[in-house]
Amino acid sequence: MSTLPHIGRLAAGPRNSITDVAGVTVGHCTLDDGPVQTGVTVIAPHGGNLFTHRLPAAAAVINGFGKSAGLVQLEELGLLETPIALSNTFAVGTLLNAQIAHTLRANPQCGRSLPTVNPLVLECNDGYLNDLQAMAVQPAHFDAALQAVSSEVAQGSVGAGRGMSSFGLKGGIGTASRVAVVGAAGQGYTVGALVLSNFGRLPELILAGDPLGARLAAAEPPDAAPEKGSIIILLATDAPLDARQLKRLAVRAGAGLARTGSAYGHGSGDIALAFSTAQQIEAEAECAQMALLADHLLDPLFHAAADSVEQAIVHALFAAETVYGRDGHVRVSLRERLAASN
Amino acid sequence: MSTLPHIGRLAAGPRNSITDVAGVTVGHCTLDDGPVQTGVTVIAPHGGNLFTHRLPAAAAVINGFGKSAGLVQLEELGLLETPIALSNTFAVGTLLNAQIAHTLRANPQCGRSLPTVNPLVLECNDGYLNDLQAMAVQPAHFDAALQAVSSEVAQGSVGAGRGMSSFGLKGGIGTASRVAVVGAAGQGYTVGALVLSNFGRLPELILAGDPLGARLAAAEPPDAAPEKGSIIILLATDAPLDARQLKRLAVRAGAGLARTGSAYGHGSGDIALAFSTAQQIEAEAECAQMALLADHLLDPLFHAAADSVEQAIVHALFAAETVYGRDGHVRVSLRERLAASN
Amino acid sequence: MSTLPHIGRLAAGPRNSITDVAGVTVGHCTLDDGPVQTGVTVIAPHGGNLFTHRLPAAAAVINGFGKSAGLVQLEELGLLETPIALSNTFAVGTLLNAQIAHTLRANPQCGRSLPTVNPLVLECNDGYLNDLQAMAVQPAHFDAALQAVSSEVAQGSVGAGRGMSSFGLKGGIGTASRVAVVGAAGQGYTVGALVLSNFGRLPELILAGDPLGARLAAAEPPDAAPEKGSIIILLATDAPLDARQLKRLAVRAGAGLARTGSAYGHGSGDIALAFSTAQQIEAEAECAQMALLADHLLDPLFHAAADSVEQAIVHALFAAETVYGRDGHVRVSLRERLAASN
Amino acid sequence: MSTLPHIGRLAAGPRNSITDVAGVTVGHCTLDDGPVQTGVTVIAPHGGNLFTHRLPAAAAVINGFGKSAGLVQLEELGLLETPIALSNTFAVGTLLNAQIAHTLRANPQCGRSLPTVNPLVLECNDGYLNDLQAMAVQPAHFDAALQAVSSEVAQGSVGAGRGMSSFGLKGGIGTASRVAVVGAAGQGYTVGALVLSNFGRLPELILAGDPLGARLAAAEPPDAAPEKGSIIILLATDAPLDARQLKRLAVRAGAGLARTGSAYGHGSGDIALAFSTAQQIEAEAECAQMALLADHLLDPLFHAAADSVEQAIVHALFAAETVYGRDGHVRVSLRERLAASN
Repeated sequence: MSTLPHIGRLAAGPRNSITDVAGVTVGHCTLDDGPVQTGVTVIAPHGGNLFTHRLPAAAAVINGFGKSAGLVQLEELGLLETPIALSNTFAVGTLLNAQIAHTLRANPQCGRSLPTVNPLVLECNDGYLNDLQAMAVQPAHFDAALQAVSSEVAQGSVGAGRGMSSFGLKGGIGTASRVAVVGAAGQGYTVGALVLSNFGRLPELILAGDPLGARLAAAEPPDAAPEKGSIIILLATDAPLDARQLKRLAVRAGAGLARTGSAYGHGSGDIALAFSTAQQIEAEAECAQMALLADHLLDPLFHAAADSVEQAIVHALFAAETVYGRDGHVRVSLRERLAASN
Repeated sequence: MSTLPHIGRLAAGPRNSITDVAGVTVGHCTLDDGPVQTGVTVIAPHGGNLFTHRLPAAAAVINGFGKSAGLVQLEELGLLETPIALSNTFAVGTLLNAQIAHTLRANPQCGRSLPTVNPLVLECNDGYLNDLQAMAVQPAHFDAALQAVSSEVAQGSVGAGRGMSSFGLKGGIGTASRVAVVGAAGQGYTVGALVLSNFGRLPELILAGDPLGARLAAAEPPDAAPEKGSIIILLATDAPLDARQLKRLAVRAGAGLARTGSAYGHGSGDIALAFSTAQQIEAEAECAQMALLADHLLDPLFHAAADSVEQAIVHALFAAETVYGRDGHVRVSLRERLAASN
Repeated sequence: MSTLPHIGRLAAGPRNSITDVAGVTVGHCTLDDGPVQTGVTVIAPHGGNLFTHRLPAAAAVINGFGKSAGLVQLEELGLLETPIALSNTFAVGTLLNAQIAHTLRANPQCGRSLPTVNPLVLECNDGYLNDLQAMAVQPAHFDAALQAVSSEVAQGSVGAGRGMSSFGLKGGIGTASRVAVVGAAGQGYTVGALVLSNFGRLPELILAGDPLGARLAAAEPPDAAPEKGSIIILLATDAPLDARQLKRLAVRAGAGLARTGSAYGHGSGDIALAFSTAQQIEAEAECAQMALLADHLLDPLFHAAADSVEQAIVHALFAAETVYGRDGHVRVSLRERLAASN
Repeated sequence: MSTLPHIGRLAAGPRNSITDVAGVTVGHCTLDDGPVQTGVTVIAPHGGNLFTHRLPAAAAVINGFGKSAGLVQLEELGLLETPIALSNTFAVGTLLNAQIAHTLRANPQCGRSLPTVNPLVLECNDGYLNDLQAMAVQPAHFDAALQAVSSEVAQGSVGAGRGMSSFGLKGGIGTASRVAVVGAAGQGYTVGALVLSNFGRLPELILAGDPLGARLAAAEPPDAAPEKGSIIILLATDAPLDARQLKRLAVRAGAGLARTGSAYGHGSGDIALAFSTAQQIEAEAECAQMALLADHLLDPLFHAAADSVEQAIVHALFAAETVYGRDGHVRVSLRERLAASN
């Protein structure tokens, strides 16, 4: 992977990962068993109890052909109160239950003297490789992914990314980061992206500005199948932003996505969610004191968001390994495909 | 219930029920077992296969403190492709799985050669009476409610309404309908409402214009607890409306709700969803021919929506029976409360 | 007006006016010249330079049949940077120019080294009484209204309210306030409302819970004309809220509006805009320190918003005087109408 | 311009212009007088009376730092009822008045027995070259642009594009089109784009996949000025789409925009508006019969939208001529800049 391109003009953080935002960790649980090629990925925005110590967050629905859960309350209150779980489309219900169970363990009065919890579960359709109807994801897989969180993030065909496809190739998990230099004092803030990449048709792939997909597709019989993919994009930052500003940041994920060739296909649930780790909101406090960056300083963060998303998609493609799934379906990795075309 | 007030100036349909909209049926499954006081209510918008024959639909999120599932894709595509399931907040995950299983039975290629399905599950928090943490709702309860659908709708402390509270009294399921006379030819269209009523504090209750709640509350020790309720409002109509117009109709549910005393409390997930049975959209068709009522004729339908929602809330209150739930909690019915205050 | 009803259970501020929120002032310029029955009302959220010292603000579009200007940028940035101008539908363009000229006088670099300004102009259609096509409103009328701002607010058939109709009666300007007691320490915050009331058909009027309109209409020949009205609702508060929370507050204006009988008619542009005077945002600052009230304390403010809006509409109706306008059109005041029906 | 790149894999229409959508015409009025470098561009969606024969339309606000007028009602009703006027930020008020006057000439009862009109005016800030404070645009300039409409569209430094800047170079008007082949029968539909291009900083410019801006900027002293631009994007299509679908189409304008290097800068009002000419909605009709393309066939139209927007931006850059404006400000054209760097 020595030729992996660097997107844009901003520097990456030390890990080039969403975990460059201090406190963010990621864990996977991968299911690889014949026709079951799926999994769970959990992003923990901080190491504490999110139900009692919440983070500002917001989502941008770029194309709403998706079944993610938790976005209605996120829009109203602008707060993250659980880790974020990623998996396949038919696993949302099971992961909602797993998230509730996790919250109850740490907050036994949730749903009694305390309000209920708003679990965040986002999904893509991995049904080309994975036997969705097997309903293979269980609550224990969520627990295992959560148990496994770390600042070292495996990429590619792992966790929720196990069965995902992108551009007719193997997709999956990718992550990246950029450091934005903001304001007169040149304060550095990190923006990190993690994608569950499952979108795109091969002829559309633009890799770091290079229309590679058109060249690769020219050598193949045309594939008339419409896109049935999706991409989930998570953005983390240590910049002090509120929910309104984080929604603005999330919208910029769509710019990075577009640069890879996507026109946000009809059947692709393209959803971006951004959160800030700069300040925690205590659930029981009556008043919060918030430092907020001015909107007119956001441009470097906007570029950091777009660039880290594009970079994370590139990482997902390069990190993925070929996966054989249900009914003889196979998705070849980009690296294998490139090797074969040389 | 001879004194049950009639809201507004429009006539009710023959059943004064959402099932006055031809083809709409409703079924309940009630769980009444000590600390478990909850249930499932299913609304079937038509008698066929919704996954292949969809209906235009839209939601209005009046206050988004709620965990309902399916609203993201509904907003994007404006289509209903499953029955609508109502239950308690912690049952959403299980009901998503039950909805998926139901869709798979009728559409075995869903998630394989066909797209996945977008199940609609809406919820309120019945945790005052019901032991939410028991996670009592099972997929079989969804199947039972769906099996039980009928044009005769039981109201009050049944189905998803079993554990719900309104205005410090027993809430639950209510339904009503109004006939709107539209256009130069005086065409009659029916608007039906079904509510899962779980909102409001007693002093705020306005019953058909009468500030009854303030009088009742004056005789009681003040209750300082904040509202932790919610109301789910479903509107059906046989008028030929598209998703944009149905969203406009759904917004008017908020007017009927407000007239009962609600100011859309912070902790109350107030969500209205409207669908039209006038025309089905075939999933595989390339083009639809749609008749659409002009927007400038919508006012009678808007009043029908507001009035039927207010009426349905009144019906829920009058139909509910006193329920004893977890930890000695009890919600007295309005009828009992009125009898006691005489 | 000794019988003027008091809406709800909260106390009014000393003036029962939006100007009970410290710093808020209101001015009118009234045009009363035969077929020209219109005017301008200006609300100054504080006494300083709004272009350099902005306020958090947000709008809720209850029904978007309206031509108000400035709401796109308000939604993106959540900031008020001009006074708020109200007038008739065809005056929006002229008032945009007047607002720009006003901003340029105080900020000569606006549009040069500084960004342009986002003027807020909201409108209702007063064309039943007023000859809209005369385009009578001139920039000088904006200047006169701004010059006239005061904490004493004339109500009824004045300023932008001169030509407005409500419920088939004379509408116009109304204002009211409520004091909300919030949190464990019982902190008092004021919510003030000002309405430009131009909506509703007579049979729908509910006055403080009393279906007065139906009684009055029963004595008249039926009026089949659809509603072509609108209502603009402004909410001010001294509670420390951000734009997201102010949008939540603005949504509650719809509850107060509904209680007067409105089902948000198709042709009625019903728009609510809320701002907080608690903290000013300096245009050039790089970071803001904001105190923010917790969302779970908002219910008393929500009730204050709904009640003050309903009260302001009642005030507009009671304060209005009969106006004779273009082509022999006349709108009788509620007080005259009530006197005639006794 | 023989080297002008062709964006994407779809064919252009015969004129490679928004006027390839039958019935659409465009006219300019250019003001070129020393410090006044501005103008008006009018897009006429069809040749008839839009107030009586409306078109489905919708907007996507990509970044709402803009002062465009008419979008609130467009969101509610999904209808275009005037031509679309483009100009500078401070001209919006004057153009609202000009649009009203134009509507009144053809519809003398507008604002009397008929409703008022919702004029659409969109804008960018051309204040670097143009003396915004001169308020030079007059109603006659709107009339002249409307008079001049034609299917031949001048591009570059003309009309509203006269004073606009893009990527530190001269921006302005650009147009392009693509033909999408849709459905089993291979039906061809045209999507045309017209942009008022006024966004971007030089280092960000990506020209048809080539990071040209970074190379050009490397030879210059760095420009620390933040973006204060904007882009208005109009999309026309002859495909039978409703407002909900047209909003989906408009969202894809953001994909084309992103591919040119934009991350939707904070200070850039990026707004896309799409309309369909396939079916007219008569203002007085009680019911419309609409043919609607299925959503699952939209992908070719989405790509046509993204590609034609990117192409239109390229056209604007290549067509623009160097303009000298106020206070010695100058924007060099891309062609001059490229010639100088060879």
